[in-house]
Amino acid sequence: MFTRLTALLGVYLALAAPTQPPGPDPAHAAAHHEFAIDNFRTESNVVLPKTRIVYGTYGRLNDARDNVVLLPSHYMANHHGYDWLIGSDRALDPAKLFLVATELFGNGQSSSPSNTPEPFHGPRFPVTTIRDNVEAVHRLLVDDLKVTHVRAIIGFSMGAQQAFQWSVSYPDFADRIVATAGTAKTYGHGFVRLEGQIAALTADPAFQNGDYTSPPKAGLAAFATVWTAWLFSQEWWRKELWKASSPPGTMFEQTLHEFRTNFIPGADANNLILQCRTWEKHDVGAT
Amino acid sequence: MFTRLTALLGVYLALAAPTQPPGPDPAHAAAHHEFAIDNFRTESNVVLPKTRIVYGTYGRLNDARDNVVLLPSHYMANHHGYDWLIGSDRALDPAKLFLVATELFGNGQSSSPSNTPEPFHGPRFPVTTIRDNVEAVHRLLVDDLKVTHVRAIIGFSMGAQQAFQWSVSYPDFADRIVATAGTAKTYGHGFVRLEGQIAALTADPAFQNGDYTSPPKAGLAAFATVWTAWLFSQEWWRKELWKASSPPGTMFEQTLHEFRTNFIPGADANNLILQCRTWEKHDVGAT
Repeated sequence: MFTRLTALLGVYLALAAPTQPPGPDPAHAAAHHEFAIDNFRTESNVVLPKTRIVYGTYGRLNDARDNVVLLPSHYMANHHGYDWLIGSDRALDPAKLFLVATELFGNGQSSSPSNTPEPFHGPRFPVTTIRDNVEAVHRLLVDDLKVTHVRAIIGFSMGAQQAFQWSVSYPDFADRIVATAGTAKTYGHGFVRLEGQIAALTADPAFQNGDYTSPPKAGLAAFATVWTAWLFSQEWWRKELWKASSPPGTMFEQTLHEFRTNFIPGADANNLILQCRTWEKHDVGAT
Repeated sequence: MFTRLTALLGVYLALAAPTQPPGPDPAHAAAHHEFAIDNFRTESNVVLPKTRIVYGTYGRLNDARDNVVLLPSHYMANHHGYDWLIGSDRALDPAKLFLVATELFGNGQSSSPSNTPEPFHGPRFPVTTIRDNVEAVHRLLVDDLKVTHVRAIIGFSMGAQQAFQWSVSYPDFADRIVATAGTAKTYGHGFVRLEGQIAALTADPAFQNGDYTSPPKAGLAAFATVWTAWLFSQEWWRKELWKASSPPGTMFEQTLHEFRTNFIPGADANNLILQCRTWEKHDVGAT
């Protein structure tokens, strides 16, 4: 399904590597896995009886177990979030590397407000931190895959947050990190920006403090519209660069409508908020 | 009453002129006036039976009627919005100049959704444009004050929008314009940003499509929170420069709470939206 965040990454790709061909690549047929952890204790000191990290792998782990690259997901992404980097003619060749693309708590696949039973369902799911995510993925790599060292940790946005956290929590684990469009700490402005989006979503009483029975549509649309203004530069809008990824004849109003109503299709409101809060709390200095 | 937009201008002033003394100035005792127009036809072709422009004056119109400076208001401001520029030791000395500070339609004093009777009350008030405002103020100056030329039109933000419009609609009217933090046209990003704020406000069903019986508090708080993220730079937040205008010991959370709950105290939701739409529609090129 077409999503606007995918479109964003598409634009990002188009700018970063204009000669690369678009379209699907056989390498993107990731193997889908889950790693379960019993009694996972979060940094906020909540014990979740059952948690899971969903992840995809590309390529094959070699016998020396030394061809691993970790790709932690960005906001609300699944493990296909880095497909644009993966391919025989791209930065990450699965014929040589074993790529492990993990999904953050709260994306709706890994343990999330939406898929966790009571007493931690919905708004009662604890605010997981970037450190919690790194701890869970560390266990996945060490305990499940028997991998104790990786060639690189590559992350975009919240993926970059995780890469920075890895370099502090486990400084010898990776040869390098490649962190783009992310920081080692969320400063005041990031907090205010995210709280604005949350305020927009929760202004809709259909949200019912997180115990909604159907999606709070007006709140979700407001959340999307507010975020849309933060996605691209003033110059991008002024030059109408959205036309580059839209069918000919698309009007500005249609573009805004698409962002407003189809931002992250099917995303659960509590999940959207949980990952905002994960983002806000990020600070490698508190490790 | 303390308002955060006033605080913003206070910060702006502090940065622009750090040696100027704070506090009230006798010159700020503006004379308060109203100018009424019968059957004002808006650019959208609605005829408002009775409209009014509220304005303040400082100083005295000289006999030659050639010492006038026009100060059109910024978003939701009243005619005290430029007091920080006015004084015997400041840029605009009312002992020499006759200052006319006008208030935009929709600020709650000049004709606004909140103070206009049916059939144009609340959400039925037409979207007035910057050109509509310039036309009304032109009549005020020419018909009421018998002023046909001014020394300057000085405007901040939506005041700058008006200054640019004056220079196109009446290119010989002013010797100069001084337009700060505003543009001659609202481009796509400005539209998206403002629509995000409106979406946040109207996600609250207490808004009732503009026919609310009491203020939509959650929506107003969401509107304020979203806007807050756009007020200051990332660097301003990162350096915690809000501390400069806060009592000692003020925490970040208190600061955000203040913005969220006391952004433009008492502002009416339909008025807030009307002026956003005035802002969005601005384009001197359509004159």
